[in-house]
Amino acid sequence: MSELRAVARGDQPADLVLRGGRVFDPVTETYERGDLLVADGRIASLTLDSSASIGPDTNVLDVADCHVLPGFIDVHTHLDTFQAFERAFRHALAGGTTTVVTETDRFAMRFGRAGIELLLDATADLPVTVFGTLPAGPFYRDVAGRRLSDIDLDDIADLASDDRIVGAGEVFWNYAIERSDETPLTTLFEAVRNHGGVICGHGAGCNDEKLTAFATEIDNDHEILKAEDVGERLRRGVVPIGRYGSIRDDIDAFAAGTEGVPAGELCLCSDGMWPRELVEDGYMDAVVRRAVEAGIEPTRAFRMVTLNAARHFGLTDRGSLTPGSVADIVVLGDEQTVDVRTVISSGSVVVQDGEVRCTDRPFDYPERVRNSVTVDVTEDRFRVDAAGGGAVAAIDYEEGLLSSETRVEPPIIDGEYRAAPDHDLLKAALLPGSATRRDGGFTGFVTGLMLQTGAVATSDTWGSPGVLTVGTTAAEMTAAARRVAELGGGWVVVEDGEPVAELPTPIAGVCSEDAVERTRDLAEAVRGALSARGMTASQPLLALGTLSAVGMPWFKLATGGYVDVIANEVVNLRPE
Amino acid sequence: MSELRAVARGDQPADLVLRGGRVFDPVTETYERGDLLVADGRIASLTLDSSASIGPDTNVLDVADCHVLPGFIDVHTHLDTFQAFERAFRHALAGGTTTVVTETDRFAMRFGRAGIELLLDATADLPVTVFGTLPAGPFYRDVAGRRLSDIDLDDIADLASDDRIVGAGEVFWNYAIERSDETPLTTLFEAVRNHGGVICGHGAGCNDEKLTAFATEIDNDHEILKAEDVGERLRRGVVPIGRYGSIRDDIDAFAAGTEGVPAGELCLCSDGMWPRELVEDGYMDAVVRRAVEAGIEPTRAFRMVTLNAARHFGLTDRGSLTPGSVADIVVLGDEQTVDVRTVISSGSVVVQDGEVRCTDRPFDYPERVRNSVTVDVTEDRFRVDAAGGGAVAAIDYEEGLLSSETRVEPPIIDGEYRAAPDHDLLKAALLPGSATRRDGGFTGFVTGLMLQTGAVATSDTWGSPGVLTVGTTAAEMTAAARRVAELGGGWVVVEDGEPVAELPTPIAGVCSEDAVERTRDLAEAVRGALSARGMTASQPLLALGTLSAVGMPWFKLATGGYVDVIANEVVNLRPE
Repeated sequence: MSELRAVARGDQPADLVLRGGRVFDPVTETYERGDLLVADGRIASLTLDSSASIGPDTNVLDVADCHVLPGFIDVHTHLDTFQAFERAFRHALAGGTTTVVTETDRFAMRFGRAGIELLLDATADLPVTVFGTLPAGPFYRDVAGRRLSDIDLDDIADLASDDRIVGAGEVFWNYAIERSDETPLTTLFEAVRNHGGVICGHGAGCNDEKLTAFATEIDNDHEILKAEDVGERLRRGVVPIGRYGSIRDDIDAFAAGTEGVPAGELCLCSDGMWPRELVEDGYMDAVVRRAVEAGIEPTRAFRMVTLNAARHFGLTDRGSLTPGSVADIVVLGDEQTVDVRTVISSGSVVVQDGEVRCTDRPFDYPERVRNSVTVDVTEDRFRVDAAGGGAVAAIDYEEGLLSSETRVEPPIIDGEYRAAPDHDLLKAALLPGSATRRDGGFTGFVTGLMLQTGAVATSDTWGSPGVLTVGTTAAEMTAAARRVAELGGGWVVVEDGEPVAELPTPIAGVCSEDAVERTRDLAEAVRGALSARGMTASQPLLALGTLSAVGMPWFKLATGGYVDVIANEVVNLRPE
Repeated sequence: MSELRAVARGDQPADLVLRGGRVFDPVTETYERGDLLVADGRIASLTLDSSASIGPDTNVLDVADCHVLPGFIDVHTHLDTFQAFERAFRHALAGGTTTVVTETDRFAMRFGRAGIELLLDATADLPVTVFGTLPAGPFYRDVAGRRLSDIDLDDIADLASDDRIVGAGEVFWNYAIERSDETPLTTLFEAVRNHGGVICGHGAGCNDEKLTAFATEIDNDHEILKAEDVGERLRRGVVPIGRYGSIRDDIDAFAAGTEGVPAGELCLCSDGMWPRELVEDGYMDAVVRRAVEAGIEPTRAFRMVTLNAARHFGLTDRGSLTPGSVADIVVLGDEQTVDVRTVISSGSVVVQDGEVRCTDRPFDYPERVRNSVTVDVTEDRFRVDAAGGGAVAAIDYEEGLLSSETRVEPPIIDGEYRAAPDHDLLKAALLPGSATRRDGGFTGFVTGLMLQTGAVATSDTWGSPGVLTVGTTAAEMTAAARRVAELGGGWVVVEDGEPVAELPTPIAGVCSEDAVERTRDLAEAVRGALSARGMTASQPLLALGTLSAVGMPWFKLATGGYVDVIANEVVNLRPE
């Protein structure tokens, strides 16, 4: 006899009873008063009187006057950066998040299929259920000459059959809509479709016929930058996802665009909540709070982060509190402030009265993953021969993740182009430096970053794996990049050749091994050191990380030159 | 370059343009005027002006003032009875149905996994896309001692990974909620869940705690017999499916129960449209017409048979007309009457101005399937020894598919219990007679069928495969059953030992090889012969077919005795 069915029938006592709450039904966006019965980690029943279902071993939680909701779901995030989720999950839980769908791009770009499997393994048995998407990145980097040749693409596509893989990760529209069907991305899409997966889009700035072409393949888009983006996506069958997280806050545009839109068609995501925001602001609770502040009805926002999210990814066992659903439950004291009091994960009380009742669960990564930044740095790699002189191409950093192409005339000293920090002209270099590539590397120029002294380097490159460094001299850049390599990966700011702030990220070169609070402190120190040296970008780490993101607008850094993102072409220092 | 994306971008002419229609958006339940572009069998775009997309080879259909809808989807039917869908599909298409989800129970009970594969093969390349569910029947017949021992259950469950298998077929609640998790049905459910499938319920008469227990496993229920059944299912996370078809018309109850219910949560089905209704009334067009008559808004009904149906079964490539969807399109002249003028299937015009432009596609079934009714009939199998005398158990047929247990005292002649047609007391027998079983057999009694003379036999048994016969004497029953076996399966009415009406169904003993119109005529002749001989049941073939349906209410016939459906027990002629 299954306990679940027996409890539902009223023939056995429940494991857990949440008594007297207002239980949320996302289908109707209303509450129903009652006692919620849990058995075998699943919802057994919602009943007006649970007294007959309470036995000597039943855990009874009094939730009178509280709102009882399904656990929150983040439909788009990047767990593989800054912090390891084996530690960060406790903060997610504290805010009622019990399921996430994550990109796997960074791990995959560095270790191929094994990297994705590692991310899945490291997050396999957490009280937050982690699903992954297969990264689109490795499948289209070839257009810009950046294919990571020793990553086996078919091997990655085969992972589409994994129970925890629910789709393809964010695809940049500019490449996707122009490609031929013979390109590898088609293989990825077919594998994902054959296993019922979702294809996630990144449609920032995509509209009109281009958006229509993109919509023939993608299922959602979390790049809602303007209110009208919502309707334009919806009428093409693309689910708009409102974003609030460390990268951007698009909620005002999303809220304006979703007025009058049927409630079932919308989702919310964080797109990554980095250590400071995670500790100080929250996770999906913060996203919902922000949505409510922006004027979205709380019940409508709750629906977006529960049932809608689950349905969109075909996660039929969660997202509601109906019988048979996984018992992932959030108890709120107040709708408006989204104050999470108690959280249940698969029937276990993991947060009670605001206290998280579980500890970090560090994962034992193999040595090759903990020592993967193998870049060999010599100062001459950052020297730029000025033979011929004249103007050269450079990246003009704007704000957020935006950068465009410009022309600069760097000073020439000893036959070399040099940086000119007084004129906001810095060198920027990307050295391939992962387990998968050790050759090549490119040094160019960037303006708009305003660094006055020293250099910064990071292995958390959003595009090609490697070490990216921006600095005022080749010597400072060398010191910064070498220190990153010594740490096995991380963020380092140097001045006069000495580190002044650093965040080690030895896990695959991109994640810290420390507790989230310490990671937050170190990341803040790096940010502070950059600001103190003149960087005016509101998010210096985002500015640097996205310098190599060759799908984002519009002009980026790769290991073989600049990349013109729209043209999908490599651009040399001296364009033809 | 993919033609689809190129057409969507406006860079290539479309294959097909539907110009000037009112194009339905099921998400908003509204129409948008525009030209619908089709390329590569998919929807490319909806545009206000298609002139730039019309090339010399573009087929342009003027649909001005017409309603342009996604193809209709039947979420629950039984294709494996009366008619072969390789012939019937043309009638489905004529009414705008382009996708069906069918049970596979009859073929599976007779041939195991091979039977399901045969059904899928026979319907693989039709202009109506056919998806199947794995039959629950073989997985629980064991409780009543009726397990078909030579069917390999694991072999059937493994089929859950097939692209065209989308779930588990209708599960009878009374068995499911009381069973132990160790029973084979759990294996089926797990296999289906692991492949993202849907578990279909049959919850007729299931309510309160029993319904809650059932809801822990099932996803939908098409047994909406009372208006309140809708809300009771919805609040437990079970999708209510309104039924209109040859078996029952539940639409008034469904319509009453669905007032005010969010539009996205509801579906409609036929549960089987038999030859007469298919030819004379229609298919999903008839279901929608009936729903509109019952007061459901046309646009709401359209949503139920398109987007909702597709989403419920995870068929993300259909159910709407957004870019990338399969180009299954229905053009209606009028919403209220649902008059289907033109139908497109995967981009091909298959119905134009009411004319179906494709022919029957008979399938070449193997000999063992065309000659599968191997019952060996001798008159003594229908004799019932009256030793001891007194009352015996009998089936009391009520109406539709309902029957209950009763006690009768048949006349005793020559030491045998006999039928007494003057007193509405007939013999009823079920002989195992398929490729899978040849032993056993049971003869009992039935009241309520009112047959005055002769006998009827059929191999289209809803429960155990075999030949069921009901008659006034053992001799008449023998003649009827023998004739069924001679035909390789079918329906036969005899009088004085001679057939007076017959419908051959040699395909697996359950489907006709003839065109639908002829099948209709023969079935009508059988029905007429039964009515002429006194049968008062409104649907004599339904009454006889369901006599062996051991999951339906409440007292049925199996090959080893009666079955008390609620108790899940075999009941002998003389109960203890």
